[in-house]
Amino acid sequence: MPDSALSGGDVVLVTIVLAVSIAALAFAAYLARAVMAADQGTATMRDIARAVQEGAAAYLRRQFRTLSVFAVIVFLLLLVLPVADGGWGTRVGRALFFLVGALFSAMVGFIGMTLATRGNVRVAAAARSGGYRPAFRIAYRTGGIVGMITVGLGLFGAALALLLFDETAPVVLEGFGFGGALLAMFMRVGGGIFTKAADVGADLVGKVEAGIPEDDPRNAATIADNVGDNVGDCAGMAADLFESYAVTLVAALILGQVFFGSVGMVFPLTIAAIGVVASVVGILASNPGKGDASGLAPINRGFFASAVVSLVLVAVASFTVLPSVADVPDSVVSPQVLGFVSVLIGIVLAAAIQQLTGYFTETSRKPVKDVGRSSLTGPATVILSGISLGLESAVYAALLIGGAVYGAFLIGGGAALYAVALAGCGLLTTAGVIVSMDTFGPVSDNAQGIAEMSGDLDEEGARVLTDLDAVGNTTKAITKGIAIATAVLAATALFGSYNEQVRAALDGIDLGQAFSLVEPDNVVGALLGAAVVFLFSGLAISAVSRAAGRVVFEVREQFRTRPGIMDFSERPDYGAVVDICTKDSLRELATPGLLAVLAPVAVGFGLGFGPLAAYLVGAIAAGTLMAVFLANSGGAWDNAKKMVEDGAYGGKGSEAHAATVIGDTVGDPFKDTAGPAINPLIKVMNLVALLIAPAVVSLSVGEDANDTVRVLIALGATLVIVGAVVVSKRRSVVVGGTETAETDSLTTSVR
Amino acid sequence: MPDSALSGGDVVLVTIVLAVSIAALAFAAYLARAVMAADQGTATMRDIARAVQEGAAAYLRRQFRTLSVFAVIVFLLLLVLPVADGGWGTRVGRALFFLVGALFSAMVGFIGMTLATRGNVRVAAAARSGGYRPAFRIAYRTGGIVGMITVGLGLFGAALALLLFDETAPVVLEGFGFGGALLAMFMRVGGGIFTKAADVGADLVGKVEAGIPEDDPRNAATIADNVGDNVGDCAGMAADLFESYAVTLVAALILGQVFFGSVGMVFPLTIAAIGVVASVVGILASNPGKGDASGLAPINRGFFASAVVSLVLVAVASFTVLPSVADVPDSVVSPQVLGFVSVLIGIVLAAAIQQLTGYFTETSRKPVKDVGRSSLTGPATVILSGISLGLESAVYAALLIGGAVYGAFLIGGGAALYAVALAGCGLLTTAGVIVSMDTFGPVSDNAQGIAEMSGDLDEEGARVLTDLDAVGNTTKAITKGIAIATAVLAATALFGSYNEQVRAALDGIDLGQAFSLVEPDNVVGALLGAAVVFLFSGLAISAVSRAAGRVVFEVREQFRTRPGIMDFSERPDYGAVVDICTKDSLRELATPGLLAVLAPVAVGFGLGFGPLAAYLVGAIAAGTLMAVFLANSGGAWDNAKKMVEDGAYGGKGSEAHAATVIGDTVGDPFKDTAGPAINPLIKVMNLVALLIAPAVVSLSVGEDANDTVRVLIALGATLVIVGAVVVSKRRSVVVGGTETAETDSLTTSVR
Repeated sequence: MPDSALSGGDVVLVTIVLAVSIAALAFAAYLARAVMAADQGTATMRDIARAVQEGAAAYLRRQFRTLSVFAVIVFLLLLVLPVADGGWGTRVGRALFFLVGALFSAMVGFIGMTLATRGNVRVAAAARSGGYRPAFRIAYRTGGIVGMITVGLGLFGAALALLLFDETAPVVLEGFGFGGALLAMFMRVGGGIFTKAADVGADLVGKVEAGIPEDDPRNAATIADNVGDNVGDCAGMAADLFESYAVTLVAALILGQVFFGSVGMVFPLTIAAIGVVASVVGILASNPGKGDASGLAPINRGFFASAVVSLVLVAVASFTVLPSVADVPDSVVSPQVLGFVSVLIGIVLAAAIQQLTGYFTETSRKPVKDVGRSSLTGPATVILSGISLGLESAVYAALLIGGAVYGAFLIGGGAALYAVALAGCGLLTTAGVIVSMDTFGPVSDNAQGIAEMSGDLDEEGARVLTDLDAVGNTTKAITKGIAIATAVLAATALFGSYNEQVRAALDGIDLGQAFSLVEPDNVVGALLGAAVVFLFSGLAISAVSRAAGRVVFEVREQFRTRPGIMDFSERPDYGAVVDICTKDSLRELATPGLLAVLAPVAVGFGLGFGPLAAYLVGAIAAGTLMAVFLANSGGAWDNAKKMVEDGAYGGKGSEAHAATVIGDTVGDPFKDTAGPAINPLIKVMNLVALLIAPAVVSLSVGEDANDTVRVLIALGATLVIVGAVVVSKRRSVVVGGTETAETDSLTTSVR
Repeated sequence: MPDSALSGGDVVLVTIVLAVSIAALAFAAYLARAVMAADQGTATMRDIARAVQEGAAAYLRRQFRTLSVFAVIVFLLLLVLPVADGGWGTRVGRALFFLVGALFSAMVGFIGMTLATRGNVRVAAAARSGGYRPAFRIAYRTGGIVGMITVGLGLFGAALALLLFDETAPVVLEGFGFGGALLAMFMRVGGGIFTKAADVGADLVGKVEAGIPEDDPRNAATIADNVGDNVGDCAGMAADLFESYAVTLVAALILGQVFFGSVGMVFPLTIAAIGVVASVVGILASNPGKGDASGLAPINRGFFASAVVSLVLVAVASFTVLPSVADVPDSVVSPQVLGFVSVLIGIVLAAAIQQLTGYFTETSRKPVKDVGRSSLTGPATVILSGISLGLESAVYAALLIGGAVYGAFLIGGGAALYAVALAGCGLLTTAGVIVSMDTFGPVSDNAQGIAEMSGDLDEEGARVLTDLDAVGNTTKAITKGIAIATAVLAATALFGSYNEQVRAALDGIDLGQAFSLVEPDNVVGALLGAAVVFLFSGLAISAVSRAAGRVVFEVREQFRTRPGIMDFSERPDYGAVVDICTKDSLRELATPGLLAVLAPVAVGFGLGFGPLAAYLVGAIAAGTLMAVFLANSGGAWDNAKKMVEDGAYGGKGSEAHAATVIGDTVGDPFKDTAGPAINPLIKVMNLVALLIAPAVVSLSVGEDANDTVRVLIALGATLVIVGAVVVSKRRSVVVGGTETAETDSLTTSVR
């Protein structure tokens, strides 16, 4: 292994990176000040915004309280788990940085959401008084704040670890990545259940049953729906992209050290710092101009400006930071070319996914038009065409991602895994802009909600917000595609360190056929990996159905007990629905969360380190496709509905509209609960595997082998998973049991 | 390798097996005579039955004509492809047995369908005059004929190859299995598209738009719907189970030879012969008794009788045919115990899948009841609950299948793969009964259709047929679960021979990390394998949507141009719809078919034999889950609809009924087109990989390595796939283009 202690020059460079990360946070503060200074609109609008702010903050506080218990348990477990090399100091560092990662992930989510709930009302106010351009500007800048905090904190953590722990930093950073990924997964799942329980519940009882429009203030679920956009699409997504960023950096640092020593660790950080600069340029470049064909034009301009700046600076960095020759066996190109081309592959992949997702989910393109036209033959054909669109688009995304990995593999030669990790870094040089684009979605959505509820906007203002919302639907789908690509790249790269960990722990014992694809136990491992993705998706979707059922029940109950609601003489109890969503989503996130953490433990200790590797491969393969399938089907249905609402096939109120509303409702938990949670799921499982690898190996082979302990751990993990699944099933029985009578009578009265 | 030439005793045993296979065919003939002797009902019923018979036969004739061209091309390619060991004789034998396999697969499908189209009218007649028991008896016996032909021809081919080719029989049988699987895949896809295009089209235009009941003679698509049941559920399914049977036997023979020499080949044939005896017992035991709780009771009785008989005879065979000791490294148990326990695992797996599928798809159990209840909140919740049910049930099925593979792996020790293959044989000892159960489904469905169209049955007779149909829905779902389990077991076992082929072709060159799970190119391979499953499913579903659209268009057109249809004064042109379904399904099957055959070629020659192995693992993992998900979601929706039609939540005509009809329509292509075709897809891809392995290796490494040729082959295969996908996409454009005007005006008139 090359010399991996930081040289004096390296320390200077990393210190500069640290300074850049702090500058990113400062730029975020600057943007925040500008957004906060904007007008907040009428008193009604402020009231509504305050209700959303309070609901969202209350939810996150409760979630963090629940998760902090969990974080402490994992912290203690990390202290117990052996590390392949490095002593107690490394172990404690890893556990502490786990807490730092979790904390940063939570902070990104919390700050992002706090600002989004302030930005939304200002966007609505700007649409009311200033029109399209100021509204767009505030929405996008609010996103920019979240983007800069995401990259700033990620970069700060990684640079700090490197300065503090020097050559053992990669091990310490495993903890950082794991903390970020774990928190993000819980926030994605919990927020995803919250937002869709409220949204689906509001739609079922409002649009479908009571016949009142979306975001109508008479619907008790509307505030919860708006809160949901913030805790799910905003806080959950920000935490998710933070962990993508952190885990990708971690993978690159681990592998950089293996292949190129200290410079291999410094280079990815340099790339990330370049990304900060590029993001600032991109955010500033995203100003709507007069010649823009659509709202997507300035957003694309920002993205491509950011990509070009990255590309130029990365070329400079590659040929100055990296050595021109290195001692890597089977190397195909020089380290400098390897560095540049790998990052380039990542940047191109980000652009390609953006185009592909846009093609499959934009209202103006053929696929969504086809789904829209299928509404003429009813809901069944809408569902079928959306599903086949999703299945096929997932394949093209998988081909792009697979192509990028294979390209990095070819160029990387002996250092192929490092090349894959660098491609991941390249993908994320535009992270700041991507987060801005994504946050744009829930902020615009909420602005529309607030405007609708307040009734204080004229037609022109409302049209501005509808346009912004449609753009947001597509940017949200794009971010999901890019997020899942980071999962594949990071997971593939982390495989390299899994391999290293296993070999180090084996300490010279022959690996044999343990990692062979053609062994039956490994086929079983891959089957289980794919199975977990299906189970996780199924659990997430059914959790939404259950929670939405309770929302429907509550809203119906309020219509019944407060007859004044319908003629606006009485105010619905918005807080009650927020409360139901909060409680239910926190209760429901436990089962998928435990599954993600404990399934690799059960497979690893139960079947061995070979099947565990196969398990990860199965999960990556099935997870990638499932994630894109769910995201794009959902996105297409949502925009097909918008297309009909814009007047196609009879417009609002037609049979075709009813059919697309059904498609959109099916798509809600697809695209906003199950789909996006698969990305952190894959990373959490990979990191768990990495963390337990030394323990699995030492209990399986060699002197310390102990089958009893090994099998007991596996059994324990399995029992907890089974217990959690059974409890969640019984919960559905409780709902169907004690509430059946009420539900049935209510339904009968509605029919 | 142990001595693998057949001894004198072996030849006697194989000759007995051959005799048993002929006896199975004779028993089929005996059953056929009994069925044909039954009464055919009224003249109207005969007329309708004749129309169905003619349509189905015409479809199959055209399909075989198309496929025969394809078969000849593959035959020629097989002559060109090198074999790892064995000379020209083996190569010619393999190519010839490919044709035999394809022919047998076609014959099973054709004969099965011919008899089903004769059995159905007799079942209707029996329900009319004799009541439940005679109707059940004829339906089940018709299935029994198909079952006995399936096992008879499969066993006959395998035994014949062994007698003719002795030790090179395994290689020759690869051709046999491939021929069977390839034909079955095309028949599954083509038949699946036909049946669901007709069914969905008939439902959309009949039940939903015109408001006439299912199977109403005024609907021009009804005859096509009935034809579809036969060409899809009956011919396609019979061919599919024939190939499952053949491929599993082939895998067991190949591996048996490797581990135990000639006796290792004779033993699986003995198991299969035992299966014939057990199936006869099972078929005879399936008589409805007076104390039966439901129609499933006698079917379960037949299955369990068959399983018990198998178990006893297998125990005897294990301890007489197999040696008590053998020279297998790392063996855990004696060959006798290995043989018995492995087969036992397979039999238990079949029973477990039966129970699991029943739990998730029977009307009387909680999951379907939950889906049914979700109809109270509309179609969106019906779809969501069905999807989460399907996703979760797929996981339990995967756990069962994975558990069986792992159990065989543990007991098998050094001969683990042989144990997995024997578990596959165990799974199929009940094949005769399983085919009977499955064929029961389309026969009952058709009987109901004929009865409804003729109007010649009283209420009592109609109720009998409805009961039989509901039982058929569950048996069909069970068969699909068992079929996909055979795919996993056979594919896992075939991996062993893939490994052997690659190592033999490498001829001493070190395999290195080529098969390692943690290599980036292998991760890409796995991703591509999962992607093909998604693409194949997406293509199959969209093919159904397209073809159904044309059916809807034709039926609407007939309603418009022949106004007398609605008051029964004019007869619709049934033949026109049959014609559309025939043409469209044959045209649509090309793309998924080419994808299945050529994708492994592209991956193997393009990326290498390591990624090809990973590709297969990815396809098995994703394919298993996808197949069960699609089958069980579809089955649950179908039975949830039946539940509401039986009076729950408002019964026929209620909002809840409309919601479940939408669910059922979405489920149609899930459960009868995409889902069941994944089983032969996996086997075809595995066999293609096995067949091309020596060529891939020799072009990649060693003296004959030639990257130009290798990449050209991969590019050629890729281009054909891309071309096929583009053509199928353009087809949707043509339909949307030239026919848009008509479609739109028609839709407008309907709305």
